[in-house]
Amino acid sequence: MNAVGLIVEYNPFHNGHAFHLNASKEASGAEVVIAVMSGNFLQRGEPALVSKWYRTKMALLNGVDLVFELPYMFAVQKAEIFAGGAISILNAAGCDSVCFGSESGELSSFTETIDFMIEQKQQLEENIHHFITTGVSYPKAVSLAYHQLTDSNSYLDLAKPNNILGIEYIKAIRNQQSSLKPLTVPRKNADYHDEHFASETIASATSIRKAIFSKAGDQNSINQYVPAPTSQLLLEYLKKYQVFHQWENYWGYLQFRLLTSSPDELRDIYEMEEGLEHRLLAAALISGSFHEFMEKIKTKRYTWTRLQRICVHILTNTKKGQMAGPSDQATYLRLLGMTNKGKEYLNKRKKDFSLPLVSKLSAYKEKEIQLDLKAARVYSLGIANHAANELMNQEFTQQPIWIKKG
Amino acid sequence: MNAVGLIVEYNPFHNGHAFHLNASKEASGAEVVIAVMSGNFLQRGEPALVSKWYRTKMALLNGVDLVFELPYMFAVQKAEIFAGGAISILNAAGCDSVCFGSESGELSSFTETIDFMIEQKQQLEENIHHFITTGVSYPKAVSLAYHQLTDSNSYLDLAKPNNILGIEYIKAIRNQQSSLKPLTVPRKNADYHDEHFASETIASATSIRKAIFSKAGDQNSINQYVPAPTSQLLLEYLKKYQVFHQWENYWGYLQFRLLTSSPDELRDIYEMEEGLEHRLLAAALISGSFHEFMEKIKTKRYTWTRLQRICVHILTNTKKGQMAGPSDQATYLRLLGMTNKGKEYLNKRKKDFSLPLVSKLSAYKEKEIQLDLKAARVYSLGIANHAANELMNQEFTQQPIWIKKG
Repeated sequence: MNAVGLIVEYNPFHNGHAFHLNASKEASGAEVVIAVMSGNFLQRGEPALVSKWYRTKMALLNGVDLVFELPYMFAVQKAEIFAGGAISILNAAGCDSVCFGSESGELSSFTETIDFMIEQKQQLEENIHHFITTGVSYPKAVSLAYHQLTDSNSYLDLAKPNNILGIEYIKAIRNQQSSLKPLTVPRKNADYHDEHFASETIASATSIRKAIFSKAGDQNSINQYVPAPTSQLLLEYLKKYQVFHQWENYWGYLQFRLLTSSPDELRDIYEMEEGLEHRLLAAALISGSFHEFMEKIKTKRYTWTRLQRICVHILTNTKKGQMAGPSDQATYLRLLGMTNKGKEYLNKRKKDFSLPLVSKLSAYKEKEIQLDLKAARVYSLGIANHAANELMNQEFTQQPIWIKKG
Repeated sequence: MNAVGLIVEYNPFHNGHAFHLNASKEASGAEVVIAVMSGNFLQRGEPALVSKWYRTKMALLNGVDLVFELPYMFAVQKAEIFAGGAISILNAAGCDSVCFGSESGELSSFTETIDFMIEQKQQLEENIHHFITTGVSYPKAVSLAYHQLTDSNSYLDLAKPNNILGIEYIKAIRNQQSSLKPLTVPRKNADYHDEHFASETIASATSIRKAIFSKAGDQNSINQYVPAPTSQLLLEYLKKYQVFHQWENYWGYLQFRLLTSSPDELRDIYEMEEGLEHRLLAAALISGSFHEFMEKIKTKRYTWTRLQRICVHILTNTKKGQMAGPSDQATYLRLLGMTNKGKEYLNKRKKDFSLPLVSKLSAYKEKEIQLDLKAARVYSLGIANHAANELMNQEFTQQPIWIKKG
């Protein structure tokens, strides 16, 4: 059974994702689709709209056969580490290929860009160093340095997060000497960060979330952009938990932790740089919302997403040394859900998996997975009703979701 | 200007307090009344109904001339340390006497009990040790051990918290070799912990709080038990902050901290004993309210108030080594408010004060006071509206309250 791997967040699953999924099956000729998906907190340093269990259901009802969790230690990370974790999981799960969406849909534009960067390494580093001294963030400096060396349009635009991710996927495959075959398919319209709807059926997840939060309770405005199961599951979630998760639901906890931690404790938090802790504390004292807080702490030096990721680490009390580094690979395969076909694939192939398969958290005692447990518990505190405790404890005992189809 | 000292919490100031205040003035013949008052968190390990600033106003409008804060490091403590801090502050502020309420109104019953306990020290300790091995709490063991030795009614009932406090005040005066003259006046009806109204005008603070929380918004039921300024200030507070503070307002924060702290971090919390941290974490996962949580963690070995104090320390992230010990004395006099007469007293006497007088927290940099600042900030998080930030920052800049009367 040939398998193609997808690296996803599905926040929520929309028509663009469905298009990517089908195109990936076609491009790879695979029978089975395996997704590695961020858990409850995402790469951009935000809580997911709905829990990973509901997003797993969306994936399975829309054509994915197996969903593995990208552990927190890789998920809430910059592109390089995120990609390293995701690739190592797809590799361990026996995928033959990995397929990501891109503007160009041409793999050569990625490999050529990587080769160019290797070739120009020294000059690039000098340029990066120069731009860093002007006070911009590291990703911005890389992008500027790179574009200073390339005046043609033949290379990728490094200002686009999706291009950075694609590059990192291919670099991870090389670094891990993986036999995964990289594939890319063209994205359908809608830029990753578009806030406004771009076509009649395709919209970015960002614009869909924006619509959801601006019209609480009224899902009609997004129905044309998401498959029916997404719509139904979003409604079900809202009914059960009375909330779609967003940073504002956690603002009180973040503020509380900032106000009660010593500077030493804050400096211990992953990615916290010397001096930033004082800036965060000062802002926490005069902010009445997460948005207000972010507006007060942002600087040219830190990207918005990097600051949001630091805030997630404060929220989950994640320390330096508890997260994955650039050359780390995953150490377990946490199964979130499967279809019948996915189950069949597991039965045939799991004996060859190069990592332990974790179906229930309570049955796996390794220290690394505790971080996922903690993140899930914190996530459940965004729910204000009695269902919070249920979701909190579900994390420990939940069996993988099994959708009896496909 | 002769001054009498009172040790108070005024949560809230009621007719019984007014009776005690007048009786204390009479018994001491003092012109000036100085109160040392717990801040936002109380000896029983609870947030005060309203902020220390409002409770200071209640005190000043009801006959107190000067209010000093009993620092957090002494206030959220067992009787011995609480008393040591309070006595050291009244002493440093130049009081001539300290007057506390008691059932008997006889100082001799306290001094005789203390002398008896010293005399019987060895036997008492043996008995205490015996009762501890049966699994009861330390205060309970002391009370049982003591009553095993005294079959007459000539000594105090050590099961009553107010008697324990009186004993500790006198012991603190002796230990600190203070010249404070101890006085006691009879309490008017209403046992400290009475939950039901006991007379037509006198009710315990506990029963008044119970009435307030059971009939939110309807103050009429308590008006006969509190002086008019208390009534007005409670209404004003509710209008401004939309809340009377209680543990349930902080439950989410407590649960959040428990879920995100490592066992090592929890063991670092003041008064946390080995093993208790696991019990707290397990209960936090399945409790939907503070009350539910307390019901789950209570044991014979810990008193309810001791567990509540530990919860306050978790909430404020107060570590072993940051709190006062049994022989510690206060290191500053934090002035919360004064009347004209209090101001006159300060002008005349402050040059003789044996501790630095702190009028504004922002002007005093010592490390100890940071704990009061942190506690006040955490307290303000019990308010759900925008006024929370105002109260949070007021702590740092607030001048002492000056009531222009008296």
